[in-house]
Amino acid sequence: MIRPGAPERRYAILAEGWFARNHAKTAHGLIRYGQDEVACVMDSALAGKHISDVLPDLGRDAPIVGTLDEALTFSPTSILVGLAPPGGRLPEEWMETLKAAADVGIEIVSGLHQRLGPEFPGKPVWDVRDPPGDIPLFSGEGFGVGPRVALTVGTDSAIGKMTATLEIERAAREAGLSPEFVPTGQTGVIIAGWGVCVDAVVSDFVAGAAEQLVLEAAKPSPDLILVEGQGSLGHPAYSGVTLGLMHGSCPDCLILCSADPAEEVFRGVPRPSPARVARLYEEVAALIKPAPVVAVSLNTRGMEEREAQNLIAAVTDETGLPAADPFRGSAKPILEAILQAPKRSVIGP
Amino acid sequence: MIRPGAPERRYAILAEGWFARNHAKTAHGLIRYGQDEVACVMDSALAGKHISDVLPDLGRDAPIVGTLDEALTFSPTSILVGLAPPGGRLPEEWMETLKAAADVGIEIVSGLHQRLGPEFPGKPVWDVRDPPGDIPLFSGEGFGVGPRVALTVGTDSAIGKMTATLEIERAAREAGLSPEFVPTGQTGVIIAGWGVCVDAVVSDFVAGAAEQLVLEAAKPSPDLILVEGQGSLGHPAYSGVTLGLMHGSCPDCLILCSADPAEEVFRGVPRPSPARVARLYEEVAALIKPAPVVAVSLNTRGMEEREAQNLIAAVTDETGLPAADPFRGSAKPILEAILQAPKRSVIGP
Repeated sequence: MIRPGAPERRYAILAEGWFARNHAKTAHGLIRYGQDEVACVMDSALAGKHISDVLPDLGRDAPIVGTLDEALTFSPTSILVGLAPPGGRLPEEWMETLKAAADVGIEIVSGLHQRLGPEFPGKPVWDVRDPPGDIPLFSGEGFGVGPRVALTVGTDSAIGKMTATLEIERAAREAGLSPEFVPTGQTGVIIAGWGVCVDAVVSDFVAGAAEQLVLEAAKPSPDLILVEGQGSLGHPAYSGVTLGLMHGSCPDCLILCSADPAEEVFRGVPRPSPARVARLYEEVAALIKPAPVVAVSLNTRGMEEREAQNLIAAVTDETGLPAADPFRGSAKPILEAILQAPKRSVIGP
Repeated sequence: MIRPGAPERRYAILAEGWFARNHAKTAHGLIRYGQDEVACVMDSALAGKHISDVLPDLGRDAPIVGTLDEALTFSPTSILVGLAPPGGRLPEEWMETLKAAADVGIEIVSGLHQRLGPEFPGKPVWDVRDPPGDIPLFSGEGFGVGPRVALTVGTDSAIGKMTATLEIERAAREAGLSPEFVPTGQTGVIIAGWGVCVDAVVSDFVAGAAEQLVLEAAKPSPDLILVEGQGSLGHPAYSGVTLGLMHGSCPDCLILCSADPAEEVFRGVPRPSPARVARLYEEVAALIKPAPVVAVSLNTRGMEEREAQNLIAAVTDETGLPAADPFRGSAKPILEAILQAPKRSVIGP
């Protein structure tokens, strides 16, 4: 139901005018972490360059082109809408590009709230945020999953939980393990080619969706299941999604994702300290099944090296937990903490 | 959007074969707490009796009839599907009754997951669980609501949060206050004639729905806003709904609903103690806006008087909070605790 036989896609990534900016995080995520091929990026402002000229950190290369006709010369199977436009709805020029692509049989892939399927009747469209129709209520079957399950949680939303999870997955592969990444948001789903955007699921079924995802990930008997977290226990708009995902995925341990503590979660609401919110995540998890926070993953983007190292040291000190920025450095310390955590079969407080 | 000018309904309550049982809680709730008129109850096993013969505690009377034809002699405007059938889908006989009612212009009102609108095209159907289409994300506007906001929370789901909230509302009216009840579940919405079933809302929008409901309830400047809670922080299937509702409704204080602590929330998961879970609710609320638990509302249904009093005394002892069963006794001690709680304008931990 949730993980179809993943089609092999070859993407043209539409990021017109935005490729070099943070808003294109779906595009960047697919390039850095995706299994599918990247045929080209479409951004006329950067046409003629390559990805490696603009964003060498992404670690994969492909040409950047200015038009759909050029993009088609690289034989894409699919065109990705690589960002959420500021106004919410796609600009008219993009719709025309997508229509032209659909007309020559290219699949449209979109993680937008705005659904594109109805705009292109009869054409292949993957609206990534559309949840499957048959999600059951949480059943408790997830309590019995064999492999160790780790979930990323955060002091805030949009703080790098997906990136942390994918970097831990990469570190696990490098260590010779076979991990499974469980995608729960649009970029994660596009990267992995399967999953459910849990924030788009009717709230009664969020825990059930999380449970089904973990059960699906357990099928090939991986060494480790790494669940992408969403939102934050301390974000007023998204905390319900966070908690449904936490209880539904029945994790054995948690990785707390944090960043600059001086920022606000929401107007007037500061980011809680890692130690405080780690204890709260543990206590709320333990109402159902104990899951200790075993490490802190820090997002130090934009910081000087010394500033980043100071933050990492301060958080290690405050929490008594291993802390690292897996993007700046390595996810190995976090992976080791996960592997040392006991597999929990205890249910109840 | 959320509270239309409430039409005045006069209900025939369809509860065929089930009226005397707990499963008919929507029917019972409407009779005890609803503002709308009750024309009659339809249950052929009890035809010829009155509500007061069967369930005198409900405090309102109407005839019980066996057929739709008899029901129509009491001039209903609407027919309520008064319970959730065990299999999830309505039995065929009921569908026939509803069809016959719809054919003579009677409105169908249903709180079922199964939507009835598509079954009766062109007929007036109120599918209570259908959320409005225009719910925004949580905005923070709820932080500024004028009247004091109290929310019921629970040690478990299905533990009497709606009943507690409505009994507190009744006590407030009896004390000469003008309270507003905020309905968040199907029975509450049917009773009040407005509201949103938050568990049927896409999870990203649960907090926004809760905020909009409170803003709507604040419009007539009531003395007090009483928000019906859902689920429990400690129920794995519904905790996300609970937390979205808690953060989204921006309460000033919480009333903890509890019952026999020996029961299980879910297989293997016991009900947490009132003191433990009260502290957790407070800590999680305080990530956004402080909201103390000011009283415990106990559901002692089925207990002997002495057993009930012992439980009330034990919980008062354990929590240091006023505790009462508002159904068995009075909600006055709980109302007083709410009125003594400070109106909070503090945001953040």
